[in-house]
Amino acid sequence: MGKYKLIAMIPARLGSKRIPKKNIRFMLDKPLIKYPIDLLLGNKCFESIWINTESEELGNLCKNMGILFYKRPQELATDKTTNREFVYDFLKHHDCDYVVMVNPTSPALKKETIDKFVEFVQGNDYDTVLSVNSIKTVTFFDDKPVNFNPNEMLPSQLLSPIKPVVWALTAWKRKTFISLQEKGICPVFGGKIGLFDIPEDECVDLDTEEDWTIAEAILKARKEKQGSVRYVEL
Amino acid sequence: MGKYKLIAMIPARLGSKRIPKKNIRFMLDKPLIKYPIDLLLGNKCFESIWINTESEELGNLCKNMGILFYKRPQELATDKTTNREFVYDFLKHHDCDYVVMVNPTSPALKKETIDKFVEFVQGNDYDTVLSVNSIKTVTFFDDKPVNFNPNEMLPSQLLSPIKPVVWALTAWKRKTFISLQEKGICPVFGGKIGLFDIPEDECVDLDTEEDWTIAEAILKARKEKQGSVRYVEL
Repeated sequence: MGKYKLIAMIPARLGSKRIPKKNIRFMLDKPLIKYPIDLLLGNKCFESIWINTESEELGNLCKNMGILFYKRPQELATDKTTNREFVYDFLKHHDCDYVVMVNPTSPALKKETIDKFVEFVQGNDYDTVLSVNSIKTVTFFDDKPVNFNPNEMLPSQLLSPIKPVVWALTAWKRKTFISLQEKGICPVFGGKIGLFDIPEDECVDLDTEEDWTIAEAILKARKEKQGSVRYVEL
Repeated sequence: MGKYKLIAMIPARLGSKRIPKKNIRFMLDKPLIKYPIDLLLGNKCFESIWINTESEELGNLCKNMGILFYKRPQELATDKTTNREFVYDFLKHHDCDYVVMVNPTSPALKKETIDKFVEFVQGNDYDTVLSVNSIKTVTFFDDKPVNFNPNEMLPSQLLSPIKPVVWALTAWKRKTFISLQEKGICPVFGGKIGLFDIPEDECVDLDTEEDWTIAEAILKARKEKQGSVRYVEL
């Protein structure tokens, strides 16, 4: 089980905006919200598994799928609510060493990745663990090079990766999070930060309708038998 | 036509390593190399369209598809060859104001994106134009925040994007490239740099077998009629 007590929390609003009602929308053969639930059910790493939503109906649906329902106050389910507020609220109501947030917007995530993430959390002593997509590509920010020297052309394998946060999996140490928040300090990137690499084909994040199409295509390709590799004759 | 003379160049080795013989491998219904060719054929922005390869067979295949064949010296077709060497070689043999490199490893690219890229090149006076994937996500490099302040939690829409280079489309001003290279300065990121945003669903880059599966899935989803949006009943 590991030295720390972990609980899992799936954040889900019913009133999502950019992809309306995404959590109850079917992606292939099941509603989006069922992806994280199926990943977590039966996982022995967590003392409990929670849906965190403002919606009574969505909460009950998830209860029927086998997890626990924490009803978030309505005022923490607006477009302006960030992790900062609803995670604080959740942690105030639940005892644990760490909460692991499993995001429905990463439906391509796999069980073994959650297990490795938990191992990473248990094996260290971070205050915040973020999941990242490690990209070995020359990158600009603000028109300036981030991870390369423009005066040389390195093979991409030799580049230091940039690491955008995926938000597929996030772990926060309860004590640190609550204490920073109550001091008026933003706890989302609080304390000692650990970065955990997510495999690239699990990184897709549902922000837009286009992302939805891509995610669905990736999941479909996983299920289908791959055709044989064919070449043109020269 | 624009003020500058542009030529298009598709770089393709037969002996690719990470995805073997990828250029002649079928992606869905046609070999990979046919994707950039089909995008370019009939495009009036370019004075000429070239395949740049060491392989006589691959060159002739592309000629039969309707473009011109420049045979790259064998010594510029190794795993260690970079843009720097083979673009220099190509530019020494071809007159133009700019060469636009169209990469077969970006099969999800669309015609209208090439047109907009050309417009961007023609409408400015850059020495180098790179295509980038603009990502509004909190990002780390070397364990440090790149584009955000960890003491506040901004909505992602308000973040400044990081811009990994996609290499789908690249334009180099011939004069600058040749002159820098002959001075011993790396010309790949030479002179005044312009960054051009590629839509996200066109950004997939074929580095690994996994990328191949993702790209094929995206292209397949584009062709298929999208099913209707369905929701679970609450």
